[in-house]
Amino acid sequence: MARGFRQKIRQRNTENSGFGSNASGRFINKDGLPNVQRRGVNVFNRLSWYHTMLNLSTFRFLSYLVIAYISINLLFAMIYFLIGVQHLTGIDKSTPSNEFIDVFFFSSQTFTTVGYGRIAPVGFTASLVATFEAFLGLLTFAIATGLFYGRFSRPRAYLRFSDIAIIAPFKDSTALMFRLAPYKNNALTDADVIVSTAIEVIEDGVPKSNFYRLETQLSKINTLALNWTVVHKIDENSPFYGFSEEDFKNTDIEIIVQVRAFDEVFSNTVVQRSSYVTSEIIYGAKFTPMYYPDKENISTILDLDKINEYQKADLPVWAEEEK
Amino acid sequence: MARGFRQKIRQRNTENSGFGSNASGRFINKDGLPNVQRRGVNVFNRLSWYHTMLNLSTFRFLSYLVIAYISINLLFAMIYFLIGVQHLTGIDKSTPSNEFIDVFFFSSQTFTTVGYGRIAPVGFTASLVATFEAFLGLLTFAIATGLFYGRFSRPRAYLRFSDIAIIAPFKDSTALMFRLAPYKNNALTDADVIVSTAIEVIEDGVPKSNFYRLETQLSKINTLALNWTVVHKIDENSPFYGFSEEDFKNTDIEIIVQVRAFDEVFSNTVVQRSSYVTSEIIYGAKFTPMYYPDKENISTILDLDKINEYQKADLPVWAEEEK
Amino acid sequence: MARGFRQKIRQRNTENSGFGSNASGRFINKDGLPNVQRRGVNVFNRLSWYHTMLNLSTFRFLSYLVIAYISINLLFAMIYFLIGVQHLTGIDKSTPSNEFIDVFFFSSQTFTTVGYGRIAPVGFTASLVATFEAFLGLLTFAIATGLFYGRFSRPRAYLRFSDIAIIAPFKDSTALMFRLAPYKNNALTDADVIVSTAIEVIEDGVPKSNFYRLETQLSKINTLALNWTVVHKIDENSPFYGFSEEDFKNTDIEIIVQVRAFDEVFSNTVVQRSSYVTSEIIYGAKFTPMYYPDKENISTILDLDKINEYQKADLPVWAEEEK
Amino acid sequence: MARGFRQKIRQRNTENSGFGSNASGRFINKDGLPNVQRRGVNVFNRLSWYHTMLNLSTFRFLSYLVIAYISINLLFAMIYFLIGVQHLTGIDKSTPSNEFIDVFFFSSQTFTTVGYGRIAPVGFTASLVATFEAFLGLLTFAIATGLFYGRFSRPRAYLRFSDIAIIAPFKDSTALMFRLAPYKNNALTDADVIVSTAIEVIEDGVPKSNFYRLETQLSKINTLALNWTVVHKIDENSPFYGFSEEDFKNTDIEIIVQVRAFDEVFSNTVVQRSSYVTSEIIYGAKFTPMYYPDKENISTILDLDKINEYQKADLPVWAEEEK
Repeated sequence: MARGFRQKIRQRNTENSGFGSNASGRFINKDGLPNVQRRGVNVFNRLSWYHTMLNLSTFRFLSYLVIAYISINLLFAMIYFLIGVQHLTGIDKSTPSNEFIDVFFFSSQTFTTVGYGRIAPVGFTASLVATFEAFLGLLTFAIATGLFYGRFSRPRAYLRFSDIAIIAPFKDSTALMFRLAPYKNNALTDADVIVSTAIEVIEDGVPKSNFYRLETQLSKINTLALNWTVVHKIDENSPFYGFSEEDFKNTDIEIIVQVRAFDEVFSNTVVQRSSYVTSEIIYGAKFTPMYYPDKENISTILDLDKINEYQKADLPVWAEEEK
Repeated sequence: MARGFRQKIRQRNTENSGFGSNASGRFINKDGLPNVQRRGVNVFNRLSWYHTMLNLSTFRFLSYLVIAYISINLLFAMIYFLIGVQHLTGIDKSTPSNEFIDVFFFSSQTFTTVGYGRIAPVGFTASLVATFEAFLGLLTFAIATGLFYGRFSRPRAYLRFSDIAIIAPFKDSTALMFRLAPYKNNALTDADVIVSTAIEVIEDGVPKSNFYRLETQLSKINTLALNWTVVHKIDENSPFYGFSEEDFKNTDIEIIVQVRAFDEVFSNTVVQRSSYVTSEIIYGAKFTPMYYPDKENISTILDLDKINEYQKADLPVWAEEEK
Repeated sequence: MARGFRQKIRQRNTENSGFGSNASGRFINKDGLPNVQRRGVNVFNRLSWYHTMLNLSTFRFLSYLVIAYISINLLFAMIYFLIGVQHLTGIDKSTPSNEFIDVFFFSSQTFTTVGYGRIAPVGFTASLVATFEAFLGLLTFAIATGLFYGRFSRPRAYLRFSDIAIIAPFKDSTALMFRLAPYKNNALTDADVIVSTAIEVIEDGVPKSNFYRLETQLSKINTLALNWTVVHKIDENSPFYGFSEEDFKNTDIEIIVQVRAFDEVFSNTVVQRSSYVTSEIIYGAKFTPMYYPDKENISTILDLDKINEYQKADLPVWAEEEK
Repeated sequence: MARGFRQKIRQRNTENSGFGSNASGRFINKDGLPNVQRRGVNVFNRLSWYHTMLNLSTFRFLSYLVIAYISINLLFAMIYFLIGVQHLTGIDKSTPSNEFIDVFFFSSQTFTTVGYGRIAPVGFTASLVATFEAFLGLLTFAIATGLFYGRFSRPRAYLRFSDIAIIAPFKDSTALMFRLAPYKNNALTDADVIVSTAIEVIEDGVPKSNFYRLETQLSKINTLALNWTVVHKIDENSPFYGFSEEDFKNTDIEIIVQVRAFDEVFSNTVVQRSSYVTSEIIYGAKFTPMYYPDKENISTILDLDKINEYQKADLPVWAEEEK
């Protein structure tokens, strides 16, 4: 990816991106997380299992719970089996496998504290193990309760970004635009957006990433209920000033976006990030509207499926002397 | 609702409302949520079930829990019935309906983990189903625990807004006023208010909503314990400057209010919004006081039932030349 | 309490206290809550039971839980008793009171889902009631879980304020001082304080409360680990400028304090308020130090019991011409 | 530790550190907590048990839970034993120790609400105790649920600071540097750092700590994903201006660092603090890089084990006339 931009950009780059100029690859992944791998330290210290459990998909999360439940019961079933089925009442002792099945179910009835009592421990060892299994069961479900709550109470912005950014005509000039919309029944207010860009330039023959802040036409809005088209006008203060279609195609560009808003249901600030790289920037296009009045003219409809819809548009030709 | 205002408003409208000028109908509903319908995406992705469960009334929420409890038990009762009642001990096998009743109660005793043991599973299939039902039961109550906590720990402002806004006499001029008061035993400090308005104007024969920020006499108060009468003076900087009673009646106006405060019990910022449309604005009125000292003169009483009480009041006549 | 101040204060009073000038009695109670009673609305709507449960003392909270537990069990015991003890197995039917005792314990075994099974329901009606009691039990403990968590996870500042404020000598002049200290093992940073005062003045023969902001020598500190003595210098910008000892004694004064800090354990902003009225202001005193190095000189000791310790101190005489 | 600095520092010290100038020993411990001991008040009021439980190591926390579980069961076992084993069904009455073992396990089966029913209470007293034990059990697990959730949902920065600060060459001058890096899979944005220093000076023969704010080259960064080397340039505005290697060795210096960032998973601001004292400052060194591109050049690797790696570096000689 060493396609450096040949031309000098006039603007001063910013130094507070948090990324070094010799970091490589995409900086921010499409999902908003930084593209950094950590090494060293112990893997257990390096991973926050709580962050991990919160980021799992619902299906995976539930699968892990079921697997953990079965594993723990198998483990305890083996322990009871080794202790001896004679220390449990009501076991079907017809075959060893029936014995194992019964101790497995005894384990599950203990772990969940359902405790029918058809099978029950007798004597010290089996009772002691059951005592700890029931305790472990309750703590496990205490943790599960916390994880469920943590998962669904976690404040999130629920924003959908357009997959592509476009270079569109804008007030006799051009502008870089992308759009975003809230797709859930949450209520976002006081939203603001910060847009920056990393551009790879060749300095002394070495590719190097420079970071620039991109000014937007409107960086704060009161209510984020409809779509928000973020507009960065490409004028003299833009690092993209003078970029031709070729430049946009041949330079390693990454647009980094951070949206911050206040969610009224969570009463919390939520943040979502995304990024656009060179291949996700369409030159010469404009977005088609994605909201319209409903039939009775009493409400507004936001069609989320249209978020990526755009049409070709001619851009004004750059005055050569401006370059 | 296409009654556009015939007259040019001098003030510059703001562009950061987040609503497009061609959105239609009321922008913010009386309950503070934006009047927008979302289409597209999958309905499951479009709904945050957690937000939904948090916004349900207590009665509905509890009803849903009871319905879910009965449905799950019916489902498992059918499964146990299909497996065969011979795999459960203690079932009353006198009639099939008695059998079903007993498996239903066995199911509930498993799901809640009460597990009396009068009815208990014997053999692999029934035991396996019971194992998973008890597990499901615990997870369900884990989720219910989270939902209960989420519902009652959710920071809310508990503000009551007056149902109407008034145009009242104010310091030789007039002012738009509405009031609000905290109605619960929460403690709000550092409150601020942001007021804006959407006014429908006819531009080139097309109705179009313009948004204006309304300046208020006092936009921050230290302690929100009594009622707060928010006052927007209608002077040269107001978009309503020069509006006659007729203008207020015949123009589509929407006053959008956002109050933000710090709740000391939740230690969290809380936000509440509301709005007033043309029909909710009373011309020529003033609010009657809603708080007074108690008999012993050692405390102040806030009478919340008076929040909408007002009396007629004459307004100063507008100087025609000012228009 | 209508002892109005006879003299004109030069400073402009602030209007954003949130209290009206004709509110009566103390504005902020010693515990920081506003001294306002709410009327109207329904009492159930006026009380946030969650806020109430969070503010109860631990003893009261636990007592309420126990009372609720016993009451619910008594209620269900009566229902089972009315249904008839023949629908429960294992009941001691020797006397009606023994019957009631057994149904009571059956109820508790169902409500807690312990379900030994020595007593178990047989037949539709008793089983149905037990089914709902177990469900109710789990929901009740779900709510209890939330309340416990809400109570102990609630971010609080854990600050102790001195019971008294003093008028102390300060740099050739005098100052109003009070102090506060964190008394628990929490870690507070970035603390700030806002001090205001309500002074009752006689305007046109009518007592009226005016509010003034009091400037402090240091309104922000980085780490709130030792005590913080808040100092309001009484100079020309103070509403107390020119106040004699008599004035301080004969005027209705209320000093309102709000401290805000960031708690690093809760990762949350916490706020605590307090107030001082006329009788809690000591004229001519200075605080004695409340922290000192430990014996090994490697740590600092903060003695919280000394927070109210002061000694008499002479104040500079006010220049008469200044008045 | 009374090695005061002999020389006058030109900069004005700040007064808002929150520490008095005669506090002694290290101000902020390496783990970021203030080095203050509290006395007075009651020890129970002085300790927030919730803060304490949150700060315990996982091993200790689990050990405490297990110890509490065993203790409670032993206590209740004794109570049941004193009431008499004849009030419990199914007890093995062969020996008193077997009786005690069975009542112990009955207690655990009641406390966890597993309630097999092999042992069950008969009669008023034993049933009453069991009723309360089951209730206590559920409340205990309610509290445990809250503690687990509180522990793992507690927002933390998960930053690793370099163990040492260095005095390094920087742009023809020198700078004090230290570095920090996030070591877990959390996502930190909008990080800022506040650095201050306490320097012990001899005033009138008495050692006294003065506090200074240290300006840094970059006090805010957008994304805290790689390591952050914080740089305080030692120029005329630095209190360390003119310090020789000897001065750094012989003066009691403490560098106090506070990093604040927004965690996107917790949607919360997190803060972490640390400090460096004289013996942790290396004169004449520079850090070796700790991140590099991966082999495929598509990502950046951060090697956390290198955080303390540095190499010797010559510093420019201080111009004597500057002193």
